[in-house]
Amino acid sequence: MTEGNQHIGYYHFVVEPFHEDFTGHISWNLLGIRLLQCASKHAAAYGFGSVMAEQEACIWVLSRLTIEMNRRPATHQDYCIETWVDSIYRQFTNRYYRIVGADGTVYGTASSIWALIGRESRRPISLEKLQQEHPTMSLIEVHRPEVHIPEPARIKGHASEPVRSFTAHYSDIDINGHVNSIRYIDHILDLFSFEKLGEQEVRRIDMTYSSEAFCHQKLDLYLTQEEAEDNYVIEIKRSDTPICKARVEFAAS
Amino acid sequence: MTEGNQHIGYYHFVVEPFHEDFTGHISWNLLGIRLLQCASKHAAAYGFGSVMAEQEACIWVLSRLTIEMNRRPATHQDYCIETWVDSIYRQFTNRYYRIVGADGTVYGTASSIWALIGRESRRPISLEKLQQEHPTMSLIEVHRPEVHIPEPARIKGHASEPVRSFTAHYSDIDINGHVNSIRYIDHILDLFSFEKLGEQEVRRIDMTYSSEAFCHQKLDLYLTQEEAEDNYVIEIKRSDTPICKARVEFAAS
Repeated sequence: MTEGNQHIGYYHFVVEPFHEDFTGHISWNLLGIRLLQCASKHAAAYGFGSVMAEQEACIWVLSRLTIEMNRRPATHQDYCIETWVDSIYRQFTNRYYRIVGADGTVYGTASSIWALIGRESRRPISLEKLQQEHPTMSLIEVHRPEVHIPEPARIKGHASEPVRSFTAHYSDIDINGHVNSIRYIDHILDLFSFEKLGEQEVRRIDMTYSSEAFCHQKLDLYLTQEEAEDNYVIEIKRSDTPICKARVEFAAS
Repeated sequence: MTEGNQHIGYYHFVVEPFHEDFTGHISWNLLGIRLLQCASKHAAAYGFGSVMAEQEACIWVLSRLTIEMNRRPATHQDYCIETWVDSIYRQFTNRYYRIVGADGTVYGTASSIWALIGRESRRPISLEKLQQEHPTMSLIEVHRPEVHIPEPARIKGHASEPVRSFTAHYSDIDINGHVNSIRYIDHILDLFSFEKLGEQEVRRIDMTYSSEAFCHQKLDLYLTQEEAEDNYVIEIKRSDTPICKARVEFAAS
C-alpha cells in the first residue's frame, strides 16, 4: 500500500493558534509555507536539499503551484502532508501533495512544478544530468493513480487596468532576497472582501510564477472574473513584466 | 533553581525554513507569533486559556509588548521560549519571556501586559475576582531578579503627516476579526529600507496597543526619529483614533 512507500514523505503538523485566518482554519499563507517546507525536507532527504543546493550554488524555484482544498483544517486539528515526486524531466520535477487528517479526512491535494537554477546564473540546471553526476541523489518517481491530483489550470484573462498596486517591503521578502512565492497568495486573497471570504470558501488556487520581484519594486494587480463562474484571474506585473498569474476558484455558496 | 520552577512554561521550537526573513534569522513576525502562542498555552495550562475564555465569553487582549533581542536565532537553530507571570493586578497581568538557545545562548527577552476583556462588552474583567470565583484558575507569580527584563519604554514623538497608509485586508486579520497585534510589527518594519534592515539589526521593539482595527479600514503610519539616536517612533492611527504606537531601536552599525 502507499502508506508503506518509502519514497513518500510524511510530515505531521497541528494547526496552532495564531496560524489560522479569521475563519478559524489554517491560513492560506501557512498552508502554502507548509507545502514548501515539506518539499524542501523531502528533497533534502534525497540529496537534493539546501545543503546540496549550496554546494552546487543552485536553488529550487517554484514554477507552478495548484492547491485544491475540500476544507482547511481548523485550529488544534492534526494533519499530515504527504509529498512525493511524480516525474522528473529535463530541469523540472512534478511534485504532488496530499493533506490528510489524523482521522483519514482528505483535506485536499496539491501539485507543483519545481526547477533547479544556478544561484548566480539564474539559469536552469538539468536534473537528469545532476543525478548522473551525483549518484547519491535520487528522486524516485512515485505514481499514485488512486489519488486525485489537481492538474494546473490554463489561466486565461486580461484586464487593462490594475485594481491595486503595492510596493514589496521587508515582510514580503524571503531568504533568497525576492518576494516569497506564498506571499503573492496573500496579496491575491487580499483583493477579496472580508465578507466574501467569510461566506464562501476558496476551493482552489492556481499559481504560475514567471519572474522574480524584489524589495521596493512596485507591483500591479490586474483582476478579471471568468465568465459564468465565481472564478477569478489575477495577474501581477512589474510595469509590463509578468511576475505571476493566479486563478482563484470559490466554492458554490 | 529557576529551571525547576513548575510555574514557568518552557516551549521548544526550531527555526524552520520559510520562517526566516531575508537575513536568514527568524522573522520578527514568527518570533512575535511564538510569544503569543506561548502566552496562550501557558495561560491555558493554568485554567485561563481559550477554553476558559470561551466559557466566560472573554478574550485575552495584548496591551503592551516589548521585545529586546541580542540576536535572533537562524534557520535550523533550536530555541526555547520560557514564559511566566510576574504579577497580576486588577485586570492586568505582566507576563515575561526569555528566548534561550539549546547551548544556553540568551537570544533575548520580552515583556508583555495582557488584559482579559468581555467578548461582547469589550470591557476589562477583574482577574483577581475571576480567580476567586474559579479556584481551578491559578496564575502563580514568579520573580526572577536574575533575568534582565526590558521595561516598556515611554514612547514619545509626534509627526504631523503620515509617511504611508494601508488598508487592512484578509492577511492582516486574525481569528478575533481584528488586525493581528504582530501584523502591525510587519507594517512598521516595512517602513525601513531593505538596505537598512540588512546592514543593521533591530535590537528592540516596543508596542503599545490602544484600539482595535478591522478589515477594510484605512490606517495611517506616522514616523519620527528620536533625537541623537537611531531610534524611531511610529504611530498608527485610523483618522484621529490612535490604534498603536511603536518604538524601534536599531543596534549601532
